[in-house]
Amino acid sequence: MIQNDRKPTIQTCYSPALYDLFHEENAIVVAVDILRATSAICTAFEHGVKSMIPVAGLEEAFEYKRNGYLVAAERNAVKQDGVDFGNSPLHYISPEIKGKTIVISTTNGTQAIEAAKGKATIVIGSFLNLSALAGWLSEQNRNILILCAGWKNKFNMEDSLFAGALANKLIESGEFETLCDSTIAAGYLYERASDNMFEFLGRSSHRHRLKDLDLEEDIKFCLQQDIFTSIPVFNGKELVNLKAIQEPV
Amino acid sequence: MIQNDRKPTIQTCYSPALYDLFHEENAIVVAVDILRATSAICTAFEHGVKSMIPVAGLEEAFEYKRNGYLVAAERNAVKQDGVDFGNSPLHYISPEIKGKTIVISTTNGTQAIEAAKGKATIVIGSFLNLSALAGWLSEQNRNILILCAGWKNKFNMEDSLFAGALANKLIESGEFETLCDSTIAAGYLYERASDNMFEFLGRSSHRHRLKDLDLEEDIKFCLQQDIFTSIPVFNGKELVNLKAIQEPV
Repeated sequence: MIQNDRKPTIQTCYSPALYDLFHEENAIVVAVDILRATSAICTAFEHGVKSMIPVAGLEEAFEYKRNGYLVAAERNAVKQDGVDFGNSPLHYISPEIKGKTIVISTTNGTQAIEAAKGKATIVIGSFLNLSALAGWLSEQNRNILILCAGWKNKFNMEDSLFAGALANKLIESGEFETLCDSTIAAGYLYERASDNMFEFLGRSSHRHRLKDLDLEEDIKFCLQQDIFTSIPVFNGKELVNLKAIQEPV
Repeated sequence: MIQNDRKPTIQTCYSPALYDLFHEENAIVVAVDILRATSAICTAFEHGVKSMIPVAGLEEAFEYKRNGYLVAAERNAVKQDGVDFGNSPLHYISPEIKGKTIVISTTNGTQAIEAAKGKATIVIGSFLNLSALAGWLSEQNRNILILCAGWKNKFNMEDSLFAGALANKLIESGEFETLCDSTIAAGYLYERASDNMFEFLGRSSHRHRLKDLDLEEDIKFCLQQDIFTSIPVFNGKELVNLKAIQEPV
């Protein structure tokens, strides 16, 4: 809660490894891993999953699997053997996930959630739920930290473009302000890229990585804007759909 | 030395705290703190300083002072009491520094040098010596890591603009390539800003910080391109002028 007349602010952290530098009491953390973890999580909630349990380590994910849970596990863009789902949002467009709980562990996305777990309110962002998320954030009157998952703690392009898209939208609404250089830079990058993000990402490292794995359709899916309205939120134990809970977080 | 037919690459690290993620055997590290440490260092060498000893801690700097050295020390953009110089490049435009050794400790710039010290060849970059530096780097046939000092380990705009200016120049020469997202992003930012960097930086956090301290002239000085040809290089103990040494580094 902002206690004075100043507008709430927006910061952007490009690497989960630097989360602690940006931590603020009461800020809302928007965790972002566009290609593909947070896009997949938004897709799962839009298709009726009841909850998702993010875990950082693969061993923990496999332990859940042995205990009968549905498990999604990906490393270096590849689905792990013996689990139910990978990191593709297309895996979650299925009536079978309705009402289920899925444990999820990914190279970057779940590491970002891990960095802020227990320290801040965490919500999940993607281009798929961009406007719904921006609308909800605008009603909270709290500072925002956009936490990019990046690639193994390095800056990546697609998460930064999302940070810019979200920050620009919030600032244009007139209800937020920022002096954060990484937020301002992300906004400029998004302006430059927004006409054709798919083409813009053609130079980026991760698009090359996914291209080799024939995942161009996944990328196109993840770059669609506002096709979903679900907002996944971490309740301290698992991700749930904000629509489905009554309490403020 | 690159051992095959591939072109040498360029990476950009936005925070000294993440240096180890980017470290590569044999890469040349370009340390950057545009406002104002590396601009000041380039200015000092252009005006005949013999060597500069970068130290991370203020206590170490004061110890040198007690031992009779000339000392430059700055924290949070303010010159420290009892030393000879602050962080302003204008302090070094003086015949008195000719042939002298100056110990230097700053909020961010010397921390960047510290991160790579003993691990890589380190050279000092600024807009002031941009083309001279790019020319020299082009002759080395080694991978390059542009290490931005940032602001207390966070991304900052002005160092990233320099990274983009240098990377674009090297890539346009046809002798380098990159798939590094932070390098590509910096290049786009520089393209956006290059017509009027001073105005572009008007939104940035550090320009606000320096504006409050009435340091607009310093900023304008630091944004000049190619007024110097000196390239400071760290020889393992201190910074010296590349022109003045015979051995390859």
